[in-house]
Amino acid sequence: MSIASQYYPNEPTEPVVKTETIPGPASRAGIESLNKVFDARPVYFIADYEKSDGNYIADVDGNVLLDAYCQIASVPLGYNNPALLEAAKSPEMIRAIIERPAIGNFPGKDLEGIIKKVLKAAPKGQDHVWSGLSGADANELAFKAAFMWYQQKKRGSFNAAFTQEENESTMKNQAPGSPDLAVLSFQRAFHGRLFASASVTASKPVHKLDLPSFKWPKAEFPSYKYPLEDHVEENKAEDERTLKIVEDLIKTWHIPIAALIIEPIQSEGGDNHASSEFFQGLRDITSKYGVVFIVDEVQTGLGATGKLWAHEHFNITPPPDLVTFSKKFQSAGYFFNDETFIPNVAYRQFNTWCGDPARMIIAGAIAEEVLKHDLVSKTKEVGDYLYSELEKVAKEYPKYIQNLRGKNRATFIAWDLEDSATRNTLLSKLKLNGANVGGCAEVSVRLRPSLTFEKKHADLLIKILTKTLSEL
Amino acid sequence: MSIASQYYPNEPTEPVVKTETIPGPASRAGIESLNKVFDARPVYFIADYEKSDGNYIADVDGNVLLDAYCQIASVPLGYNNPALLEAAKSPEMIRAIIERPAIGNFPGKDLEGIIKKVLKAAPKGQDHVWSGLSGADANELAFKAAFMWYQQKKRGSFNAAFTQEENESTMKNQAPGSPDLAVLSFQRAFHGRLFASASVTASKPVHKLDLPSFKWPKAEFPSYKYPLEDHVEENKAEDERTLKIVEDLIKTWHIPIAALIIEPIQSEGGDNHASSEFFQGLRDITSKYGVVFIVDEVQTGLGATGKLWAHEHFNITPPPDLVTFSKKFQSAGYFFNDETFIPNVAYRQFNTWCGDPARMIIAGAIAEEVLKHDLVSKTKEVGDYLYSELEKVAKEYPKYIQNLRGKNRATFIAWDLEDSATRNTLLSKLKLNGANVGGCAEVSVRLRPSLTFEKKHADLLIKILTKTLSEL
Repeated sequence: MSIASQYYPNEPTEPVVKTETIPGPASRAGIESLNKVFDARPVYFIADYEKSDGNYIADVDGNVLLDAYCQIASVPLGYNNPALLEAAKSPEMIRAIIERPAIGNFPGKDLEGIIKKVLKAAPKGQDHVWSGLSGADANELAFKAAFMWYQQKKRGSFNAAFTQEENESTMKNQAPGSPDLAVLSFQRAFHGRLFASASVTASKPVHKLDLPSFKWPKAEFPSYKYPLEDHVEENKAEDERTLKIVEDLIKTWHIPIAALIIEPIQSEGGDNHASSEFFQGLRDITSKYGVVFIVDEVQTGLGATGKLWAHEHFNITPPPDLVTFSKKFQSAGYFFNDETFIPNVAYRQFNTWCGDPARMIIAGAIAEEVLKHDLVSKTKEVGDYLYSELEKVAKEYPKYIQNLRGKNRATFIAWDLEDSATRNTLLSKLKLNGANVGGCAEVSVRLRPSLTFEKKHADLLIKILTKTLSEL
Repeated sequence: MSIASQYYPNEPTEPVVKTETIPGPASRAGIESLNKVFDARPVYFIADYEKSDGNYIADVDGNVLLDAYCQIASVPLGYNNPALLEAAKSPEMIRAIIERPAIGNFPGKDLEGIIKKVLKAAPKGQDHVWSGLSGADANELAFKAAFMWYQQKKRGSFNAAFTQEENESTMKNQAPGSPDLAVLSFQRAFHGRLFASASVTASKPVHKLDLPSFKWPKAEFPSYKYPLEDHVEENKAEDERTLKIVEDLIKTWHIPIAALIIEPIQSEGGDNHASSEFFQGLRDITSKYGVVFIVDEVQTGLGATGKLWAHEHFNITPPPDLVTFSKKFQSAGYFFNDETFIPNVAYRQFNTWCGDPARMIIAGAIAEEVLKHDLVSKTKEVGDYLYSELEKVAKEYPKYIQNLRGKNRATFIAWDLEDSATRNTLLSKLKLNGANVGGCAEVSVRLRPSLTFEKKHADLLIKILTKTLSEL
């Protein structure tokens, strides 16, 4: 029996669209009312999560859509998953909800078990975690670990004490206590929207306009020619060109570069892919210059690319220093192995809550389900099928499916349209034909179904897409 | 019947201390084991939250301590509160736990009701909220709102579009799209430990060493002479002196100051108080120069000072622009009233989760309990009593209780010792005598009980404190 049928015996067999527009009238009224207390302008529709089931999201107008967007790639196992329901009702969870301890000072006796469950799904070889609250938070916590590591190394010992000058100058936001250090990232990257995370983000102006930012540099992410197999030499040259830019920036930027952060697949920025050779090149350069190598798996992590962690496709040796996670894990933080990334003094990496045990319990339950049912392999199989079907549709509608990407990356698939307006029209019409699908960058469509998306859902999505394209 | 007795019919009547040290042997073993996967160095003891009850926290060694620290000031209603238990088991909560929607795009139909419950406890006149995940996150989200407001105002219209130059330059972290703007804060302030929040923090070097920071200035927080009634003129002069520094910094700092952030009582920095006149002075200066006035109520909010929001003691007119919250609210965000603080374009203040509905449900339940049982007045009464008892103890032990602070601030009480070592010894010995109490700054002790702390708990705390002081 398929996993979706096991989890969701009553899952709809097809979408239901009852209104002429989405949002329908009930959603529109709800948005207007919500907008009086909360910024509801970006709301697509008001959902009814009680009625949502498996791969289908319901709204307050009675529409039920096949969901291939899944809360911006953050639903791991479909809606109303019975295993998560069990975890949500457990005494452990109820305790985590009514008490929210300062787990750095007064952890509950169940914390170690909760963390160990999360670690079961950690990238290979990484057996420590530091927990945070969101993808942006996870990345900034990783930056903190990286900066402290970099400065301790510069001091010549991971146990070196701080000087009086450092202690005094940091209180004034001045060097040497508050040193000028940079994180190198890539054009079109997305790593969050707080101040340091926005400083490494370069996906869209709206993500960062008017915020003061650190003067940190952006390297170029490779831009390949597709299909890859027809452009091997050119793409190899592109790897070399872009790696050289990285090395040059590390050597010449006016602020020392302490860390490099990259997504295994640039997601918000348009599902941009790069080769194993490129990622190994980054590892070699960062090792050579003592730069901390951070891989941001916030969107790519937990199986949707056909590996538990997308960077595992590249066999990077030695592995990245810090790997950040959030979204599908429903919690956040970074994994690591090397204990020199634990700051020399207690309380340097610290805050009141240090994460959220309630969300970590759900993360552990998710990890257990993903591993127990081998959902990564299942997703790979479905994704390969979906990709091959999309290739056929692309031949029929080459104008609307350009640069199809995500071969051998399971359901982590995207393509381009000719312009933003057409892309947005496609996404709107897809909803009216029963599929909730998202965009990324300016002209791309991205598929981000949960790990319970199966062949039957893929067939339905192809059917809805084909119908919609025929109407464009 | 007292509220503690209603909530906690089986609450212990006194502490139990079974081990010769705290952490005891079971805690020490737990810490060692936890430390293999998580940085457990700052752990005081491993708690047993199942056995914790009301104002008492239990540990895995069977110790049960009267808790006047309450998870760094973040327990609103005691441990295992029955009203929160009910909220934790509600269908609404279970849904919020198993689905974590992107509430900016696909809010559930219950979101508006959840937010409205939270808003019931908002500062007077503030009827909008933007939700975040922690105190640091709340402050940084408020900074984003402030910077966007400041720049829109500079553009001459809250609806002005961005220029091509702005759109292009921000992608390179350069002005004008990424302008140099500052937030003014105060020496000894604590506002969090992410990068922008750490840049306005100046409590201890360990909170920010080795992190690159924005070159933002620090004004002086008033340092009063105590007792206040004996130093009226000197303290008035101190207000004038420090307000002048604020105004001078706004006029002369090399980066334009877009916002000012202040705690109503500087908490991590040592429970430093300032007068109503000082706060009104800040409001006048920020209004005069078009600087956004942000009050950080992360630690002071929700009743412990004898007002629902501590800044309400000052009757600031007009009220502060943005008020941030977290800790006792068990969720986080900022309240505001003026709709010009909603950015001109959708998606500017946005992220995948935009907060956490599960934590917002608990916040709503907390708000309801606090208001229904008038816990703010009750806490004021208990705090006044506790303060007067502490005054007596201070007369007996003037060396160990110096600069007693928090008169008319309910249970939000602190005092100084002569040095850090003595303070730390006192805190350790208090635990062994049955009371969990915390420190702040270098030499201060702070009391942060929950809102269910009553006269009987105050009497017990005084008894334990007196015994401990007699042993020093």
